[in-house]
Amino acid sequence: MINKIAVIGVGLIGGSIVRDCKKKWPKLECTGIDINPKNISKAVELGWVDKQGSINDLQNMDVVIISIPVNAIENELKDILDRISPNTLVMDTGSTKNAICKSVENHKNRHQFLAAHPIAGTEYSGPDAALEGLFIDKTMIVCEIEKTQFKLQNRAKEIFETLKCNVRYMTPLAHDKHIAYVSHLSHISSFMLGKTVMQEEESERDIFDLAGSGFESTVRLAKSSPAMWTAIFSQNKEHVIASLDRYVENLSRFRESIMNNDTTTMYKELESTNRIKNILEGIKNGE
Amino acid sequence: MINKIAVIGVGLIGGSIVRDCKKKWPKLECTGIDINPKNISKAVELGWVDKQGSINDLQNMDVVIISIPVNAIENELKDILDRISPNTLVMDTGSTKNAICKSVENHKNRHQFLAAHPIAGTEYSGPDAALEGLFIDKTMIVCEIEKTQFKLQNRAKEIFETLKCNVRYMTPLAHDKHIAYVSHLSHISSFMLGKTVMQEEESERDIFDLAGSGFESTVRLAKSSPAMWTAIFSQNKEHVIASLDRYVENLSRFRESIMNNDTTTMYKELESTNRIKNILEGIKNGE
Repeated sequence: MINKIAVIGVGLIGGSIVRDCKKKWPKLECTGIDINPKNISKAVELGWVDKQGSINDLQNMDVVIISIPVNAIENELKDILDRISPNTLVMDTGSTKNAICKSVENHKNRHQFLAAHPIAGTEYSGPDAALEGLFIDKTMIVCEIEKTQFKLQNRAKEIFETLKCNVRYMTPLAHDKHIAYVSHLSHISSFMLGKTVMQEEESERDIFDLAGSGFESTVRLAKSSPAMWTAIFSQNKEHVIASLDRYVENLSRFRESIMNNDTTTMYKELESTNRIKNILEGIKNGE
Repeated sequence: MINKIAVIGVGLIGGSIVRDCKKKWPKLECTGIDINPKNISKAVELGWVDKQGSINDLQNMDVVIISIPVNAIENELKDILDRISPNTLVMDTGSTKNAICKSVENHKNRHQFLAAHPIAGTEYSGPDAALEGLFIDKTMIVCEIEKTQFKLQNRAKEIFETLKCNVRYMTPLAHDKHIAYVSHLSHISSFMLGKTVMQEEESERDIFDLAGSGFESTVRLAKSSPAMWTAIFSQNKEHVIASLDRYVENLSRFRESIMNNDTTTMYKELESTNRIKNILEGIKNGE
């Protein structure tokens, strides 16, 4: 049972968590904290924030959810842990984990923090992008669970059960390395593809006359929030660059096959990558 | 009014054209020609091919649709034009246009050929991937229309009206250059992204636990047919390599910004690419 929750960063992820929790605990009171007052008014209007708060209102919360860009989490987390009561659980939802965990490794209230990353979302952002049921059958990565107090581990578990997500435990370093490949790299590839096409095509009208659903699908992520992603790429620099180098290496090797008219190698490369079908089926079925 | 149609290459594109035509002209008889007899039986079973034929049956067709890999079109088109009656329209649907148009530029029956490329399709292939209404509001690129006889231009127009697609006229060279950017490059980026992730992740189970819908969207095209795409990349070599070089240049420049912790440049790059939203809205609305 959770009575009072604060959301720092009133947007897609925080909002989707609160919406599911309010469905389960109708009396749950949600305090919204955001540097942009428009986000608060919007969320109040949508009904998932009850009142506007500030960083001074973190006393007596059962749960504080931090869903702001990862550089801001790294900068603010210590201060947030300074301000809570002994019974508060603080959970972040950032897409990187190592720098965030490191920033509080020696904090006296480290045992009240749980480092989480839900693998869910859309390319949209803001309070009206928040959805009920966003996390159903999705993965919730939790890092350094052993550093969180038992009682607060249980409170987090209650939330995860409410969201109906599947929890996976990893170290922060393993998280950042794997997520660089399966998420961060996809975003860079998509943004740069969009950029390349817009550079080349003088008329945007021509782009959408000529482009099909394939193009739409590969550049969908280029609609994502620049502030959020700048922070992620910068904070996960080492692994993002490693993944990018592997990617460019593969592109360059494929370029050589085209250059040399080596259709046998091209065919083999494409065919062996077709295996991705099975992996995608798994993602789709949430299996 | 079209009575007899032959489809060479019994798959997604040819099948989707025939399905719409049969809806409009219920007496239309479709002859299927394919090197793989299983495709014919499947299409007969699905009801859109009436009988199996061979290259010797092209006499007395009103229309011959060629929907096979582009290298095969380049190799076979002359022979097909040799075998038709004076009243037959031959139309290809290949994703490249320059090599195909060049291959028959001096053919005595060039005026019976129309070079087309529908910007539609899915990542699936084969006769059971064929869909009714696939081309509604989609673009149909037609090249060198002035080389096709008036009477046969009209017959093609009847088919395009049946498919409810929007016809755009281009030169073969302009087609190949633009399509390299908006379609061929997307496929390479997707295939190589899929490859990079599979190389890195030893366990496929881990990939689909960690990957979200963003990854799914960017690698969707890596499910596409290797034979079809090897032929396209190879035939449009010059423009595909140019687009790939621009793409890799953009990726490398973005890598430098990450390396230098230059978040201002990163933010600007991502933000200016967000404009892609408007273009995608256009694609989605088929506007």
